[in-house]
Amino acid sequence: MNTTTDIDRSASYGFVAPGFEAVRNKLDSFLLDDQRYSVQLAAIWKGEVVVDLVGGPDLTSDSITGVYSVSKGVATVTLATLIADGRLDLDAPVTTYWPEFGAAGKQSVLVRELLSHQVGLVNVDGLLEPEDLFNSSRGASKLAASLPAWRPGSAFGYHAWTFGVLIEELHRRIAGESLQATYERDIRAPRDIDFYLGLPESQESRYRPTLPMEPTLEQQLEMETHRDPRDSLTTFAFNDMDNDSRLEVVLPNARAGRVAGYAASAGVGSARGIAQVYAATLGHLGDPVLDEATIAAISQEQISGIDRILNEQMAFAIGFIKPTQRIPYGSYRAFGHDGAGGALGFADPFHDLAFGYSPAPMQYPGGADARGVELSSVVRLCIQSHT
Amino acid sequence: MNTTTDIDRSASYGFVAPGFEAVRNKLDSFLLDDQRYSVQLAAIWKGEVVVDLVGGPDLTSDSITGVYSVSKGVATVTLATLIADGRLDLDAPVTTYWPEFGAAGKQSVLVRELLSHQVGLVNVDGLLEPEDLFNSSRGASKLAASLPAWRPGSAFGYHAWTFGVLIEELHRRIAGESLQATYERDIRAPRDIDFYLGLPESQESRYRPTLPMEPTLEQQLEMETHRDPRDSLTTFAFNDMDNDSRLEVVLPNARAGRVAGYAASAGVGSARGIAQVYAATLGHLGDPVLDEATIAAISQEQISGIDRILNEQMAFAIGFIKPTQRIPYGSYRAFGHDGAGGALGFADPFHDLAFGYSPAPMQYPGGADARGVELSSVVRLCIQSHT
Amino acid sequence: MNTTTDIDRSASYGFVAPGFEAVRNKLDSFLLDDQRYSVQLAAIWKGEVVVDLVGGPDLTSDSITGVYSVSKGVATVTLATLIADGRLDLDAPVTTYWPEFGAAGKQSVLVRELLSHQVGLVNVDGLLEPEDLFNSSRGASKLAASLPAWRPGSAFGYHAWTFGVLIEELHRRIAGESLQATYERDIRAPRDIDFYLGLPESQESRYRPTLPMEPTLEQQLEMETHRDPRDSLTTFAFNDMDNDSRLEVVLPNARAGRVAGYAASAGVGSARGIAQVYAATLGHLGDPVLDEATIAAISQEQISGIDRILNEQMAFAIGFIKPTQRIPYGSYRAFGHDGAGGALGFADPFHDLAFGYSPAPMQYPGGADARGVELSSVVRLCIQSHT
Repeated sequence: MNTTTDIDRSASYGFVAPGFEAVRNKLDSFLLDDQRYSVQLAAIWKGEVVVDLVGGPDLTSDSITGVYSVSKGVATVTLATLIADGRLDLDAPVTTYWPEFGAAGKQSVLVRELLSHQVGLVNVDGLLEPEDLFNSSRGASKLAASLPAWRPGSAFGYHAWTFGVLIEELHRRIAGESLQATYERDIRAPRDIDFYLGLPESQESRYRPTLPMEPTLEQQLEMETHRDPRDSLTTFAFNDMDNDSRLEVVLPNARAGRVAGYAASAGVGSARGIAQVYAATLGHLGDPVLDEATIAAISQEQISGIDRILNEQMAFAIGFIKPTQRIPYGSYRAFGHDGAGGALGFADPFHDLAFGYSPAPMQYPGGADARGVELSSVVRLCIQSHT
Repeated sequence: MNTTTDIDRSASYGFVAPGFEAVRNKLDSFLLDDQRYSVQLAAIWKGEVVVDLVGGPDLTSDSITGVYSVSKGVATVTLATLIADGRLDLDAPVTTYWPEFGAAGKQSVLVRELLSHQVGLVNVDGLLEPEDLFNSSRGASKLAASLPAWRPGSAFGYHAWTFGVLIEELHRRIAGESLQATYERDIRAPRDIDFYLGLPESQESRYRPTLPMEPTLEQQLEMETHRDPRDSLTTFAFNDMDNDSRLEVVLPNARAGRVAGYAASAGVGSARGIAQVYAATLGHLGDPVLDEATIAAISQEQISGIDRILNEQMAFAIGFIKPTQRIPYGSYRAFGHDGAGGALGFADPFHDLAFGYSPAPMQYPGGADARGVELSSVVRLCIQSHT
Repeated sequence: MNTTTDIDRSASYGFVAPGFEAVRNKLDSFLLDDQRYSVQLAAIWKGEVVVDLVGGPDLTSDSITGVYSVSKGVATVTLATLIADGRLDLDAPVTTYWPEFGAAGKQSVLVRELLSHQVGLVNVDGLLEPEDLFNSSRGASKLAASLPAWRPGSAFGYHAWTFGVLIEELHRRIAGESLQATYERDIRAPRDIDFYLGLPESQESRYRPTLPMEPTLEQQLEMETHRDPRDSLTTFAFNDMDNDSRLEVVLPNARAGRVAGYAASAGVGSARGIAQVYAATLGHLGDPVLDEATIAAISQEQISGIDRILNEQMAFAIGFIKPTQRIPYGSYRAFGHDGAGGALGFADPFHDLAFGYSPAPMQYPGGADARGVELSSVVRLCIQSHT
């Protein structure tokens, strides 16, 4: 028996500031419990990095990986720069910026409804194709013509794939360039943020592919039992009716996918990079990306209840998820987003905190990993003890 | 021991097309499990009858019986012909067609809200009387004057009885004749559909009375435990406050009831007839009853969540129920209705399928029988394997 | 063993009218089960006192005590007098009466939304201070400037503290005097009602302090397990982020608190007094306080579902809670309010009943005590047997 090796495997390495030791202890306990678990964790408090840890067999401090829907939060920060400079009004009808969107009873849908998963455009007839996402104007044209699955505003449900098409098109109509271009030029490059919507060749060697979920037998049985029918609205929204993998080429594990950096799902970065995006949002990394009024506007909860697609309790702000009893990732003022594999990023103005978390392999079930949420709780408790 | 008799009792007879044998097998397994169970089952796929089965002691292929709220779906198909020919606009206030309806804060209620159980007119002060349903204009006059139980649009809840009054009055105001007359002349008669809103004398000999539920002791105890107070909103909506049976004369087991064919609850037919109505809706039986745009409009989900009356997860389209995780009867494009005794009818444009199911005795608890839902699932899987 | 003493301890005393003996029996069974339980119970049916009982070690027939949010119901009855005389329109924007309220995206919030916990103003930045409630115009000024926690109308959640600020300010803007002054002059004094919003010195000697909850060990563990994070929206709404007790001076156990009679939480009275308020509302104590149309308007359900703050099923009328499956305290026409310690008051026009209940010590968990709800059920069953 080699105790030393056991200890190595179960210990994270990196930096924690004084007063945040409990974060490392909690992370180490997770590593000890699960030898397959790898993780990057970063927290920036009042502009200072207070946690920057890594552990486990599959990620190093230098790794970047795909964090799926965490990208939606980064995309929303980018779009919000148009709110901050007065070019986008959340209370305007979408048609103000995108006239074709008004077809099929959508004339009065507001921008704030579109961006909070209330419009019901969860897919297109015949299902989305890669070209609809690589060239999201093509997808946008299909969605603009579509009748929503529900009367807009009568329900909300996670637009897992189409959120990217919708936010990219809205951005392009107003900014006259792609959301990715704005992000790179105005947000990422000036601050050297380690998170990419469109991964450049220079960073390719750092990319670690996401690893598939490894559900336990018990979890597989539970999943099988609760599986939605192949023709359900949820299956439709996840573009999963044919059980095929046609959209995999748009995802980060495909080179073309991470180059395109589709706003709903194909962002690539480190946990540090995720935290940097949100620190920039709070004004703690270079020039402030957003003013306080814009932060307040985009982090206001827009809708809550049982998500019609996820069939779980959810609450959405503008583009972001809000903390709920089910996912208590931050204070009532927090705004952020989780990803399919368990990654999580958020800003929390109440605590002046930016947070990034990225696990491997992908965690079952999808969405915010319980360990990431618990780590965010420990970070916040450390802050509260500090002050 | 007479094995032969056992086998006979547990086997359905009738027709299944090649590729649909699994439907018969599933149905036979249900018959084997429960010797009191009788059933009619019909499915029409791309205009062809692919399933037409019957089994059990109480129904024959020729039987027709009362299927309660399945009638609401048939009534909605009828009303939808007014949408198709441009006489009814779902986005108009109800008062456009029915000015008196505007009393007591209902001026801005839209037709689409009225038809999706959102208006809150679940009963009238003093409870509904048979005359309010036999002559639904009388009931409509009372409802038009009423303050809704909830602020219209703030909730939704099954208008178990009053849906018929409301849809009949709306139809009459626009069409200038009863909904039943339109159904008979424009939909049923030209296609010889075996489903009646108003049963003619000529069909009387085919009528098999519905048989009361036979809950197990365990189910009775559960029912007793969860019973709503006698003065609750749910009890009010079901007109059940006095625990009396005053409305039984309007129901199909009463001769007067099935002659009147009250749109909420008194339709009579076979499972084949139910499937025929929906096949006609999809354009597979004579001239198309509805165009595609109208089908899309009426099958769009209008509201979902916890039904304020049923206290269960529900989703409503225009007049129809939508599939949910609780009642996954069809694809996300399906529209249909269940009935108190367990019957179920729907059209599913995604599968080009029309479906009818009618069990006996009435199943506990009320609403879509789990066996009917499972049979619809097998039918859809057979179609998906086919293609 | 002293059997006589046991019997005394477990028996209520006071009055029950013929036909209501079952109420006393039920109450006595509760007293027998729990020797720490004290209680006042009153019911007025068709204007006659039919139940006036007291029991247990801590309350006498003459006691008055703090009943926390039961005060919200009394405050709403007071405000409703402005509806009855045409000075307040539930369908008007709040800004009609309170222009400053329109800041931060609240221009179109309706009075009916404000009064049914839909506006999302659950606290102020930096938390409420006693001065914000003692002088609720100060609190109102802060709330008027605030961005709501959720988009108004997109959710609802119990405004535990701020409801008082909001209703007091709205009342003051229209009436030109405090809500407490109107209540005392127009409702309480003319009818000698034993319930006070602002307790006079003359009644001080009758005041019995509320006694803290005594959760069992099992309840404490459950509470600990389900405790919301210290930075959650729920904790924020309860002004409990610092886990301090800064608002205790506004509560009835503080002399200053009961003198001020803050409308959200500091009313003081007997169960008889609570029932008298509601009897007056129904026109059974002096001149009718409200006309029937106003009663219908304020008791109409405005919103229902999962409360975003309480994370429980709730339904709100104008200012009042409505009966639900979770709290089935009255008929579908009932309107009333519970309080943190378990007290309950309501009017039920369907039964022509007014009801007051006040237990001690405060019951765990907060809100309507299950025993009070069950006693209301027995009262209603006695009435239904009577008729």
